[in-house]
Amino acid sequence: MKEKYNFELMWSKNTEKRISSVVSNIINNYKKNNSITHIHKYPIPSKEQIINILDDLFEILYPGYFTDKDLNNANIQYYLGDKISNVYERLSKEIANSFRHEHIIKNNKCELCDDSIQKGAESTLYLLDNIPKIRDLLSLDVQAAYDGDPAAKSINEIVFSYPGFFAITIHRIAHVLYEKNIPLIPRIMSEYSHSKTGIDIHPGAKIGKYFFIDHGTGVVIGETCIIGNNVKIYQGVTLGALSFPKDEKGKLLKGLQRHPIIEDNVTIYSGATILGKTVIGKNSVIGGNVWIVSSIPPNSKATLAHSEKNIIIAENKKKK
Amino acid sequence: MKEKYNFELMWSKNTEKRISSVVSNIINNYKKNNSITHIHKYPIPSKEQIINILDDLFEILYPGYFTDKDLNNANIQYYLGDKISNVYERLSKEIANSFRHEHIIKNNKCELCDDSIQKGAESTLYLLDNIPKIRDLLSLDVQAAYDGDPAAKSINEIVFSYPGFFAITIHRIAHVLYEKNIPLIPRIMSEYSHSKTGIDIHPGAKIGKYFFIDHGTGVVIGETCIIGNNVKIYQGVTLGALSFPKDEKGKLLKGLQRHPIIEDNVTIYSGATILGKTVIGKNSVIGGNVWIVSSIPPNSKATLAHSEKNIIIAENKKKK
Amino acid sequence: MKEKYNFELMWSKNTEKRISSVVSNIINNYKKNNSITHIHKYPIPSKEQIINILDDLFEILYPGYFTDKDLNNANIQYYLGDKISNVYERLSKEIANSFRHEHIIKNNKCELCDDSIQKGAESTLYLLDNIPKIRDLLSLDVQAAYDGDPAAKSINEIVFSYPGFFAITIHRIAHVLYEKNIPLIPRIMSEYSHSKTGIDIHPGAKIGKYFFIDHGTGVVIGETCIIGNNVKIYQGVTLGALSFPKDEKGKLLKGLQRHPIIEDNVTIYSGATILGKTVIGKNSVIGGNVWIVSSIPPNSKATLAHSEKNIIIAENKKKK
Repeated sequence: MKEKYNFELMWSKNTEKRISSVVSNIINNYKKNNSITHIHKYPIPSKEQIINILDDLFEILYPGYFTDKDLNNANIQYYLGDKISNVYERLSKEIANSFRHEHIIKNNKCELCDDSIQKGAESTLYLLDNIPKIRDLLSLDVQAAYDGDPAAKSINEIVFSYPGFFAITIHRIAHVLYEKNIPLIPRIMSEYSHSKTGIDIHPGAKIGKYFFIDHGTGVVIGETCIIGNNVKIYQGVTLGALSFPKDEKGKLLKGLQRHPIIEDNVTIYSGATILGKTVIGKNSVIGGNVWIVSSIPPNSKATLAHSEKNIIIAENKKKK
Repeated sequence: MKEKYNFELMWSKNTEKRISSVVSNIINNYKKNNSITHIHKYPIPSKEQIINILDDLFEILYPGYFTDKDLNNANIQYYLGDKISNVYERLSKEIANSFRHEHIIKNNKCELCDDSIQKGAESTLYLLDNIPKIRDLLSLDVQAAYDGDPAAKSINEIVFSYPGFFAITIHRIAHVLYEKNIPLIPRIMSEYSHSKTGIDIHPGAKIGKYFFIDHGTGVVIGETCIIGNNVKIYQGVTLGALSFPKDEKGKLLKGLQRHPIIEDNVTIYSGATILGKTVIGKNSVIGGNVWIVSSIPPNSKATLAHSEKNIIIAENKKKK
Repeated sequence: MKEKYNFELMWSKNTEKRISSVVSNIINNYKKNNSITHIHKYPIPSKEQIINILDDLFEILYPGYFTDKDLNNANIQYYLGDKISNVYERLSKEIANSFRHEHIIKNNKCELCDDSIQKGAESTLYLLDNIPKIRDLLSLDVQAAYDGDPAAKSINEIVFSYPGFFAITIHRIAHVLYEKNIPLIPRIMSEYSHSKTGIDIHPGAKIGKYFFIDHGTGVVIGETCIIGNNVKIYQGVTLGALSFPKDEKGKLLKGLQRHPIIEDNVTIYSGATILGKTVIGKNSVIGGNVWIVSSIPPNSKATLAHSEKNIIIAENKKKK
């Protein structure tokens, strides 16, 4: 490339001086805006490492799907033992870092006099202990996808490629960590899933058995949602908050119940918006694009009135 | 890191015992929930490999755009010959694995007495033979994007960065494989595209020439859609199913025509939902956010009635 | 794998001949459809390299968040100096390639008699000089997210994982390059962000201080939008064009003002669509799902009329 790209032209006489001034201006800015600066000897969790760990958890949850090793009944326990020990060491450390970081922010002294390492190890073992239960749930979720989508050709297709199944897999992991009050990591996991799928499930949401999200892009499920068993949700559905209570200083109150409760056997079609502390009663169907801010009784069907009558069909004068 | 992160604290006395119990509990669960377990000596396709192959197909379809090699008229045939042979070997194997896997599921014996390898090779050659045709279509699609978007500065910009063009590229590949009845792989491809773009086109959809999706996030195009020539679609448009016929056992019937037919020269604006076996007649314009479940005659313009009158404008009492 | 996958079966007698014919057919097609072919000794920018540079810019903007190095007050200037020099060299080259490419397209001769290299170096230094200003803006944006979302647990959580914050970070970089009229690269950056977040902000949009997009999937902000200070936007909001003026040959006019102006202190709830050269007056609130194509005075609240009355609630006859 040298013959095409003349580096001498790029490193002109005063470039060095300008680069050096760039560096010192940025360092000054690091001190000024320190909320977005982390220059500190104790590390925070690594987003990259957390995503790698999730990849390993997929290999553990769905053995044989996401590895190029041939697994059989003889080698499976060595393969799994190795994966599990590895996840144990790495996730313990990330969780310890996240507790340590929170500890340092709250108590600006005494960096080592805390129990972050034990809490990291204990929380990771708690997650690993829960993997059989998580797999029990996921084997129902995969069945819900197969039973609910006429385009689903096989269970394998769902495990490999369905975004709704990817999202619920990560949610079931992240929710276990959220319930152990681990800072940062559950949300990093859920936003990784959001990025991959367009499905935004806050790790705090409680979701029952046999859950299926079809297509999924644009789905939002808020932090304090409670979803029953056998619920099916389509793309673009929002289960969100309606109002944000503030404290006496005008700051938002965090953590209050502010999202819907969806009871068992409810289907919510694409683009529906359900906001606030509403209850959607069991066995109900919520039609596409509806806007709901108060509760719906059980066994209801809520649909847009005159949705077709609201459309005017005229001649297209710009036709080609 | 050792001075900061004390591994002894993490590997406490009974950790080994707990890890070992985690491993055996998970292995027991593998046997219990075997629908999401693939412990078997014959491999299934590799999602990672299929994505790598798609990357290579982009380099083949758009030479010079996605490689750091300098291509010229002398080296192009060696470059291409190498890429093509490489894709041939790898994709043949993935397709063979996907046929083999289906064969084993259906016939639980006689793992080698099938023609998976020949079918893998033949299907791959069929795709490669179709690349000039696919490029003919894509060179019209890129023109449709340039002609249809005032923000498009150049053809290069579209090839490099437009999500709608990325999605139609992958769709035109995946659809060729779908029509050869290859299991798993077409859907893995289309869901990779969905993940990258927010545009969910089922590989079964038939799409005509000069097709453009602008912005694209949230678009859903169902398995049995048929789209004519010169169709333009905006973000958030759903071309979906309205009802899901079931068999006598209450199981969904798979594969039936259940999605819209969009005729030539139709434009569909953002957020429109068109469901069921409807026909949108040629030269029609479908306005934003409309909800359509029955057919629209040719040369129509379907828009929301009173969309602005439906809005109440009041004073904002919470103004700052 | 050889015992399972018989390569002899794959390389049958006439395979070589068929591969060779595939290669020459594709090469013929390269000449035919040359709009999507770049076989030329002068390179175009590398999308992969631009994404790598963005990763480095994240490490520069948020020191300590996205690196596994321990940063402290002693090593920070070496770390930063190295990163900055590195970005300088690589981005200068990409920008030079993008100017060179445009120069060659416009003047089909005289490939070296241009000032692409100097322009690449100068534009990169301009961006680097602006990093403290960009950080000033981003430290307000992160505060807007914390103040505006009851689910936000900490500033760290936002930096690590919020898609709206990722999108505004990339936008603030891409917009600086857009204003220097650099071809291709700003849009490659913004579409990378779109792909990761589902938030589509054209690099041309002008966005004020203290900006927050919550959830974000499906947001579209067009090229000529102007957004004031303290604006908050939810998922699925479109700030788009209404009509596309054409020249006398029927070709789209590029670059005209065609998108909304959003004044200070405006909140726009999920799914709202605002189109054309409208002005949303300061301190206004735009309700979910509204469709707006004309201006709204300051201090207004625009909401769907009868949104709940438009819903029919009936008994769900298919209840389980």
